[in-house]
Amino acid sequence: MESFFAFRSLAADLFSKIEMLSADTKGVSRPAFSEKETETLAYLESVARKHGLSTWQDNGKNTLFSLPEDKHAKKYVLVGSHVDSVPNGGNYDGLAGVISGLLALVHSQQGSKQFTHPVKVIALRGEESHWFGPCYIGSKCLTGKLSNKELSSRHKTDGQTLSRKLAALGVDTNPIKKNEPLMDLNELIGYIELHIEQGPMLVEKDIPAAIVSGIRGNLRHKKIVCHGEAGHSGAVPRVYRRDPVMAFVDLLSSLDESWLTIVQKGGDLVLTSGIVTTDPKTHSMSRISDQIAFSLDCRSQSTTVLNEMRALLELEMQRIKSERKVRFQLDEEIFTAPALMDERVITDLKISATRLGIEPFIMPSGGGHDAAVFANTGIPTGMIFVRNQNGSHNPDESMAIDDFLTGSAILFDYLTRTEK
Amino acid sequence: MESFFAFRSLAADLFSKIEMLSADTKGVSRPAFSEKETETLAYLESVARKHGLSTWQDNGKNTLFSLPEDKHAKKYVLVGSHVDSVPNGGNYDGLAGVISGLLALVHSQQGSKQFTHPVKVIALRGEESHWFGPCYIGSKCLTGKLSNKELSSRHKTDGQTLSRKLAALGVDTNPIKKNEPLMDLNELIGYIELHIEQGPMLVEKDIPAAIVSGIRGNLRHKKIVCHGEAGHSGAVPRVYRRDPVMAFVDLLSSLDESWLTIVQKGGDLVLTSGIVTTDPKTHSMSRISDQIAFSLDCRSQSTTVLNEMRALLELEMQRIKSERKVRFQLDEEIFTAPALMDERVITDLKISATRLGIEPFIMPSGGGHDAAVFANTGIPTGMIFVRNQNGSHNPDESMAIDDFLTGSAILFDYLTRTEK
Repeated sequence: MESFFAFRSLAADLFSKIEMLSADTKGVSRPAFSEKETETLAYLESVARKHGLSTWQDNGKNTLFSLPEDKHAKKYVLVGSHVDSVPNGGNYDGLAGVISGLLALVHSQQGSKQFTHPVKVIALRGEESHWFGPCYIGSKCLTGKLSNKELSSRHKTDGQTLSRKLAALGVDTNPIKKNEPLMDLNELIGYIELHIEQGPMLVEKDIPAAIVSGIRGNLRHKKIVCHGEAGHSGAVPRVYRRDPVMAFVDLLSSLDESWLTIVQKGGDLVLTSGIVTTDPKTHSMSRISDQIAFSLDCRSQSTTVLNEMRALLELEMQRIKSERKVRFQLDEEIFTAPALMDERVITDLKISATRLGIEPFIMPSGGGHDAAVFANTGIPTGMIFVRNQNGSHNPDESMAIDDFLTGSAILFDYLTRTEK
Repeated sequence: MESFFAFRSLAADLFSKIEMLSADTKGVSRPAFSEKETETLAYLESVARKHGLSTWQDNGKNTLFSLPEDKHAKKYVLVGSHVDSVPNGGNYDGLAGVISGLLALVHSQQGSKQFTHPVKVIALRGEESHWFGPCYIGSKCLTGKLSNKELSSRHKTDGQTLSRKLAALGVDTNPIKKNEPLMDLNELIGYIELHIEQGPMLVEKDIPAAIVSGIRGNLRHKKIVCHGEAGHSGAVPRVYRRDPVMAFVDLLSSLDESWLTIVQKGGDLVLTSGIVTTDPKTHSMSRISDQIAFSLDCRSQSTTVLNEMRALLELEMQRIKSERKVRFQLDEEIFTAPALMDERVITDLKISATRLGIEPFIMPSGGGHDAAVFANTGIPTGMIFVRNQNGSHNPDESMAIDDFLTGSAILFDYLTRTEK
């Protein structure tokens, strides 16, 4: 592990340069399939070349890195994560995994240790669902898992379809449409991703890095609209109202109650309505709104719990529709199945942690990751979590470089241990 | 009443011209103290002059109309309402009262009947709270009741202070600042306002027009912000969350429950959160929001109920603050006391209705009106409601011209009956 700590300043410099490159009013913004994303990839390429690594782009315009001798390897371990971020997000979500893979290549290139199997590192595009609705777009394209509906989803701010954005980058969208993988999945020995923890568990438990057991699936709606009837705020008695805001309150209050019950019974669930908005063009303090739009994000390691939540949502909307005389309009459900990490990989990562003097801690991942896509494609997949203050998807993400190097050392040991 | 129905086409034409003049994408928009408001007043003046009436502007740049001989009357009945509207509002809220006063003047000018007392008709500006937060700005200025805080409130869209908007119109804001009335209130014998009903009561009960007993007061907040902590939607367990959206849901759900209880016990209350919004710059489906902003509007004919709601709001925010680890930030409370209509005026309006063959129906006003300001200044005040489909503050307001003429006939009879 000591030798890996020599990369402290290189790691810090890489994070800092990319933070500057993608700084927004607060935190960083690296939109999926944007020029800022391309710029980030180009910067990473320039650094990799400076360290004698080979770099290239794949059919999804993701960037790959390897030792020169491994560029054309037909069997390899893929290490990676994504470079895009949510708007005003933190610098580490995604980027940490890319940089940790890059450091592993540099370390091996400098002659420290040879990889057990050839290693390719991938810097993926478009993992964050913020921009188009669907998540893991980069890895779904690679594995032939992007649906045609997802391909025609529209960018949140400029309204352009994902398909058009991909084409503009030079990606041939024909195989994507036919659900043909953009890469040869048979060449993959496994997929490994280091990522910051996006919750507070490792901070609470005072552990620098952990090994992931599985990734929560999710059931999401980008936009549910509840339609009611506008009216004067002072003049419509309660009994005559069709207030969509109160209907939303009623729905979420009921979902929150069920959430509490599920968690108290030991079930796994998190529930978020991150976007809530009445119509800015017409809403007013003295007007019962005619509509409210909101997002919904349910996540669980259990498909059963997700199915239960879907049923509960339908039931409660039916009840509220009849009680409050409103109407709910749902967009297409976005569903991602929970994904289990490979038992063999988990065991090997535990051995590496132990070898480095770290008590192995196994935990579920609350956030979704590209690793889920590879795992659900049948690729043996593993993940390493690095402790991170203040959660992710916000400008206050705070990962200590030493924790990052600890996680990266586990990854490097895993990749170079010959006794596997 | 028959004679008043001869104004059917003039009334319809006036409503239609002003609707065209102030048409928006949906409904009409006549912002308070805007050029559109000034244009509306100018159009009304041109029509009044064509019918031989005197017109002028008062110190608040409201427009007045009278028979030429009554222009300088030192004791008179003031009849009026406002010309501004909420954005994408309906055409009748406010405007109906102005046009009904105007028709009364035209009717008398044409020699039908003499007024018992001189009558002046006022077309007020700035009644709607949408634009600046405070309501009844026009009548508050006239009666010296606009607070300095209200005077420095800012326009919702362009951010300009009310004070600056008034000055730009040529209003001397110095007396307003000193709470000096802009008119001689001793000259007022009474204030009478015809207005569309803003709730569904007259439609439900199939009555064309009613007499108002009192006006609900209100306790309002234009913007309450609940601050929590942003985080990854999938990775923060329920127990570690500080989710402002769920805190809002919790608060509103609790207020809604109390509302139901109060109403079931026969108390008078309506409650609305018409504006609800997470931050459009940072909100995302996969991010626990760090804040939510919302408006709150509680109205009741009872000051006691309003005080109880204020106490409940404080209590619940305290509870939720501690349970959900969030913080509520409240803007200045806007409070308007309930206002009772004058008993003598109510009795006289009932006599007029009965004389016209209409069973007098007495009801509270849910919406606030300029009439509340005059009533609370000690001026004997009365109101007539006209049946209106689909509520107000929305483009679907629908008042039958015949119902309007029925209400106007009650007003005209009230103004011309000599036996009062």
